[in-house]
Amino acid sequence: MTEDHSSAGAAGAAGAAGAAGPTLEGLRLRLGEFAAARNWQPFHTPKNLAAALSVEAGELLEIFQWLTPEQAAAVMDDPDRAHRVRDEVADVLAYLLQFCSVLDVDPLAALAAKIERNEVRFPVE
Amino acid sequence: MTEDHSSAGAAGAAGAAGAAGPTLEGLRLRLGEFAAARNWQPFHTPKNLAAALSVEAGELLEIFQWLTPEQAAAVMDDPDRAHRVRDEVADVLAYLLQFCSVLDVDPLAALAAKIERNEVRFPVE
Amino acid sequence: MTEDHSSAGAAGAAGAAGAAGPTLEGLRLRLGEFAAARNWQPFHTPKNLAAALSVEAGELLEIFQWLTPEQAAAVMDDPDRAHRVRDEVADVLAYLLQFCSVLDVDPLAALAAKIERNEVRFPVE
Amino acid sequence: MTEDHSSAGAAGAAGAAGAAGPTLEGLRLRLGEFAAARNWQPFHTPKNLAAALSVEAGELLEIFQWLTPEQAAAVMDDPDRAHRVRDEVADVLAYLLQFCSVLDVDPLAALAAKIERNEVRFPVE
Repeated sequence: MTEDHSSAGAAGAAGAAGAAGPTLEGLRLRLGEFAAARNWQPFHTPKNLAAALSVEAGELLEIFQWLTPEQAAAVMDDPDRAHRVRDEVADVLAYLLQFCSVLDVDPLAALAAKIERNEVRFPVE
Repeated sequence: MTEDHSSAGAAGAAGAAGAAGPTLEGLRLRLGEFAAARNWQPFHTPKNLAAALSVEAGELLEIFQWLTPEQAAAVMDDPDRAHRVRDEVADVLAYLLQFCSVLDVDPLAALAAKIERNEVRFPVE
Repeated sequence: MTEDHSSAGAAGAAGAAGAAGPTLEGLRLRLGEFAAARNWQPFHTPKNLAAALSVEAGELLEIFQWLTPEQAAAVMDDPDRAHRVRDEVADVLAYLLQFCSVLDVDPLAALAAKIERNEVRFPVE
Repeated sequence: MTEDHSSAGAAGAAGAAGAAGPTLEGLRLRLGEFAAARNWQPFHTPKNLAAALSVEAGELLEIFQWLTPEQAAAVMDDPDRAHRVRDEVADVLAYLLQFCSVLDVDPLAALAAKIERNEVRFPVE
């Protein structure tokens, strides 16, 4: 991200989260810029992005597939595995945000609505 | 979330995003409360949550699997499909956040770091 | 498929396996007939079938995602779950065979070759 | 597997299929021997194998995720991609067979039964 870009408005501010760290909306916009700068948008159809999201979720699961519960709970103690976990989390979130961008879905509103439905569906006794 | 709940402390503030809508951190905390209130934490191991994330990503892909590119691009024009898309996006995000909670991973920092690595890996010509 | 099969009715001879039960090749051909009779071939592109295979594998995993190891080992003792397991195994195998048909891949030869590579890669001590 | 098989050379009798090539049942047994010889059975729980199957199905999908329909249809013309496709098909089939072994599911019978149900569910007009 260049300073020029940062001053360009919404997208710029995106990356420029200051002390508070990056925001979801900032990262969403930054991913859009990243793809646009590389002319990747033609590949970013909803179907391709849904496939990519599923593939990356599989890569995250792969880290755990043969681990015992104990090993899985300690996965972040191993620097290589911890890096891999963060890397796959980033990929899943990246494709989820790009999917939401192309279909104009608000992921936070979708999740808030789902939690409300689940609070009715699974009442606390 | 009721006002009562909002005033209940950290988790409450979570949902209390005011005019700006729900925040990622707010939803993450709310999911934690939701699971705790139902004693679901024993099931929320990293491995189970990674599996659930992958399953939900598959359900999102399922919506698109037989669609043509044109049908896929218009998926939000059909109210039933649009609801299903939002519902599966919510599920993917919910399990991603819960996975991150149990392993203390910051998904926004992970994605920001990944974008930075990708900017080096895929330079714009 | 033999003429016997054609005259036997779609379902019948597919396996044409007699007492030995259905064969993989018989089922592969029967799936091809099934799709042809319903004009589904245009949907059966390699990419769509790979997506469908992944979706069905997710549905199989879904059965197990919250189960303890003990519950998972006993999954076939519950008639409903046992039916679901068999149903998802069938779906995975169906899409795998159809994928192999459209790309002219021999799944048995591919697996035999892979086992041979793995015998070199993971020697027995 | 009998001593005959053991003495036949690892690769050979697996299918015990002679000129006809390997059989599904032969490969299933061979995979069982392969895992036993390496003491991998403790890892081969139904849940782990279902996860591994899903992961491998994702790897197969990954090959196609950014391809156009034309590129996907021609995927076997590229020797590297063709090898990768066969390799992932083998992995999916391997985990499916091992999953079926541990739960005593007959994948061919399951598929034959499913086709019969689908013939009722989707009648040809």
